Amino acid sequence: MTVAVRRTDVVIIGAGPAGMLLGHMLRQAGLACIVVERQSRAHVESRIRAGVLESVTTDLLRSLGIAERLDAEGLIEEGFNLATDDRTIRIDVKALTGRHVTVYGQTEVTRDLIEAAEPRGLPVLFDASDVAIHDIDGDAPVVTCRHAGEEVRIEARFVAGCDGFHGPSRKAVGAGPEFERAYPFGWLGILADVPPCHPELIYANTADGFALASMRSPTRSRYYIQVPLTERVEDWPEARLWDELDRRFAPLADGPVVRGPALEMSIAPLRSYVFETMRRGSLFLAGDAAHIVPPTGAKGLNLAASDVVYLGEALIAALKHGDTRGIDGYQARALARVWKAERFSWSLTRLMHRFPEDGAFEHRMQRAELDYVAESTAMQTAIAENYVGLPV
Amino acid sequence: MTVAVRRTDVVIIGAGPAGMLLGHMLRQAGLACIVVERQSRAHVESRIRAGVLESVTTDLLRSLGIAERLDAEGLIEEGFNLATDDRTIRIDVKALTGRHVTVYGQTEVTRDLIEAAEPRGLPVLFDASDVAIHDIDGDAPVVTCRHAGEEVRIEARFVAGCDGFHGPSRKAVGAGPEFERAYPFGWLGILADVPPCHPELIYANTADGFALASMRSPTRSRYYIQVPLTERVEDWPEARLWDELDRRFAPLADGPVVRGPALEMSIAPLRSYVFETMRRGSLFLAGDAAHIVPPTGAKGLNLAASDVVYLGEALIAALKHGDTRGIDGYQARALARVWKAERFSWSLTRLMHRFPEDGAFEHRMQRAELDYVAESTAMQTAIAENYVGLPV
Repeated sequence: MTVAVRRTDVVIIGAGPAGMLLGHMLRQAGLACIVVERQSRAHVESRIRAGVLESVTTDLLRSLGIAERLDAEGLIEEGFNLATDDRTIRIDVKALTGRHVTVYGQTEVTRDLIEAAEPRGLPVLFDASDVAIHDIDGDAPVVTCRHAGEEVRIEARFVAGCDGFHGPSRKAVGAGPEFERAYPFGWLGILADVPPCHPELIYANTADGFALASMRSPTRSRYYIQVPLTERVEDWPEARLWDELDRRFAPLADGPVVRGPALEMSIAPLRSYVFETMRRGSLFLAGDAAHIVPPTGAKGLNLAASDVVYLGEALIAALKHGDTRGIDGYQARALARVWKAERFSWSLTRLMHRFPEDGAFEHRMQRAELDYVAESTAMQTAIAENYVGLPV
Repeated sequence: MTVAVRRTDVVIIGAGPAGMLLGHMLRQAGLACIVVERQSRAHVESRIRAGVLESVTTDLLRSLGIAERLDAEGLIEEGFNLATDDRTIRIDVKALTGRHVTVYGQTEVTRDLIEAAEPRGLPVLFDASDVAIHDIDGDAPVVTCRHAGEEVRIEARFVAGCDGFHGPSRKAVGAGPEFERAYPFGWLGILADVPPCHPELIYANTADGFALASMRSPTRSRYYIQVPLTERVEDWPEARLWDELDRRFAPLADGPVVRGPALEMSIAPLRSYVFETMRRGSLFLAGDAAHIVPPTGAKGLNLAASDVVYLGEALIAALKHGDTRGIDGYQARALARVWKAERFSWSLTRLMHRFPEDGAFEHRMQRAELDYVAESTAMQTAIAENYVGLPV
């Protein structure tokens, strides 16, 4: 088998939003980079993820000139709702913060980024196997993989690990301080081409547990309900889930929940996780490779985007101007925002779910907090400013 | 033994702040009442409790005309501090809410209220034993006790149970929904006639646990540290506690902690508790008889004061005008404020203490929340508006 040797400035592991955003950012600055992705393009483009974008993400896409479809199709959302069985509290994000979020599926973001790659000279090696990272402690790291029948050896100045929770990059960093919380439930989700039951997201804490009504577009809905970790998707025929969603949301929404065939159904566990060593030598971690949030509040993609903003600026300064202050400060800068997003995701998860270990007192604390939120402009503002995204 | 039969409008069980505030409020409206207290006057007047008064409490004292000493000696506090080992966050209560709290010991409030009782025709039967409540389900309840060598039988229209967590009133209500959380630590407190280490309260979450620097006057300090429930006061010679306080507060305050002989040292457990049935027939509960908050945030006395405001208004309307809407709505009105104060006390306790069951992730959540508080005016406002007291 031949060995193809390539040279570049930055090797990016992972063609998800973190990796592709970083790649485009570096290309825009005239730097060379190569993206290495274990999965196929079709697989990457069809992954169903979140769909609520903070301005850190939309601003970055616009600054990269990859926002045409986002601007045409994205839904401006100026508020969202926290509901219980007997009440809905609208958080008027626009009035409280002057800002908004944009509903546009992560799947669409990924497609737009991948489509723009080739015209901009950003090579993406899909279906790359045996990806391995070498020599990260020096200034000549190497990434090897097998791709299109060749052994590929990419020599670079830096490596960016954007390969998610299960990728090789975090393992390449080695041991480091890590922090984790697993939640005793999962989210059973369904995606369907039906109009959403309500024009704005509804996070509901009902007697039967958490439920979320959300959307990807005016004709595509995404719903979730809290289920025990012992539950399997096979236990949930579509009709059963629609019945459950209708029971929970019909009273909160403008009418019955419109049903349609599932484009996707899955159960995802909820996890909070932070690996604090976001840099080792010439290897940098960004996005899910370094931290996971539970999906409550939709911070995952947006946290990847802020990591990329920090890391992209830092790598550009280092490679173009020899200024290493950015890369030296990257970890601290990223972690400051990561921990605050972890806190918000954790506290919104805590507020809106039924925890099996909770007793009657803890249920009343949830209710009292929602009662307080309903009456306090300050508390609504605190929630809104986190939801719309803390400063980058 | 003789039996003395007395008639009055309202029998109040308990001569603590809740009972005495209510008694004066009813007397001011021209109603008759008798306070029955199990302890001696000296005992009641020497109990050391909290010392931070919300405006609900100071406004009530002023409206009763029992605020001369409060206004002369009370310290206006326009802010307080949340500290960690490496940082102090000042919550500028005045700037954030336009309001303030007043430092004036609960001991002093109690003395002022008791001293004003006799001149205003408010009899207080101290040292009353065998206090029992009868016939609360009808409209002619009776309280019996033994006092000054007599059997006393007091016939009334209403009974107010202001006799604290251990008094007979809640037991007389019988079974009802109750909610409880015990905390896995206590507060070891010391009171001493020394100037406070800092002009404003400091709540500190240090590596060794919670500590609070507070004061009752410019020359009287009150300090606390978190201790395991297994600890006994005997384990803490005064010098050991002062050493510990100095170690924690000297770096946060303006200099070393000034030491002096303890006027009082004790360990108090922390508890959250709500008994929701605040009325049964002609018996009403107010203050600690119905609910306990952990001392973090100093809500206990102030919650008793808001209960009394609601209950006093309701009893006056019922007895003077035959309007029973207030007494019928008392429980719901009081509980709405109680649960929000429970939530604040619980969340501030959660934020500022070290919990033995917490892991590394939970410690980071505390730190992330404090980092967020330090930067967010909205979150500081939410804390300040609770600290200064939610609307009555």
